[in-house]
Amino acid sequence: MALIRPFQETDWPAVWSILHATFQSGDTYANSPQSTKAETHLAWVELPAATFVACSPDGQVVGSYMLKPNQPGLGGHVCNCGYVVAPEAQGQGIASAMCEHSQTEALSMGFLAMQFNLVVSTNERAVRLWKKLGFTVVGTLPRAFRHQRLGFVDALVMFKELAS
Amino acid sequence: MALIRPFQETDWPAVWSILHATFQSGDTYANSPQSTKAETHLAWVELPAATFVACSPDGQVVGSYMLKPNQPGLGGHVCNCGYVVAPEAQGQGIASAMCEHSQTEALSMGFLAMQFNLVVSTNERAVRLWKKLGFTVVGTLPRAFRHQRLGFVDALVMFKELAS
Repeated sequence: MALIRPFQETDWPAVWSILHATFQSGDTYANSPQSTKAETHLAWVELPAATFVACSPDGQVVGSYMLKPNQPGLGGHVCNCGYVVAPEAQGQGIASAMCEHSQTEALSMGFLAMQFNLVVSTNERAVRLWKKLGFTVVGTLPRAFRHQRLGFVDALVMFKELAS
Repeated sequence: MALIRPFQETDWPAVWSILHATFQSGDTYANSPQSTKAETHLAWVELPAATFVACSPDGQVVGSYMLKPNQPGLGGHVCNCGYVVAPEAQGQGIASAMCEHSQTEALSMGFLAMQFNLVVSTNERAVRLWKKLGFTVVGTLPRAFRHQRLGFVDALVMFKELAS
């Protein structure tokens, strides 16, 4: 079972390592595979409203997520999250645990819904997981993601209302 | 016929006046009605890849648009635009002219598609215009916009491929 707790600056080397590996694969996140450490820190830690880490029982950081408003002002009641899991910790339910955690956090911060703007259609594991956790595909963006191996592929917009 | 040309800093008072009036109405843009001049300058002039103005024959600024990548890196071939028209210049085809202009500019800058992330569903004139100009509604975001008069209303994701 992963422990999920707020990000601390001392977690950054571990979180950067996971993000760097994730972005370099070029198959799940829009962030450029050449993203620098500084711009990634800005995007994952400084700009979001909150950042969390998931730790294994021995205290190692094995995942992270960030949460932020998806739009300003009159769209600011819908949040957006991003989740990453270390390659060696895949398949252990960590993304699922972080997504459940983020929904609770989002509600407690006053958000009413959560939106994913660019779920890569070929990332079948993620699409299946978000659906299982209550998200709906509300739109398909044709060829909106330039997959490093497959070329242009569709991306999905997924959405979940957290409160009625 | 509006003349469309690149924004210059001397246009800012006129552009701010249009943006301020648009945001204050709280029925078309997510930007808070309380948006300050500085944060609006950042969002409309500094962060976008390009900003243009539409001028009436006597040289008055009657509209403006901005163009930027909608996502970083591997999603950066899809651009996003925002358009505003002065209240007294509505209904003269200025939004239409700016949207056509922006598609040409986007192509020349290397973008392959254009996406609108949050078209307010009750803004029927805009929805009709974007459809006429070749955009498709690819998704509906339930209650994603907090309309100042109507409360929570749906928002649309609209998309157009500019190049094949």
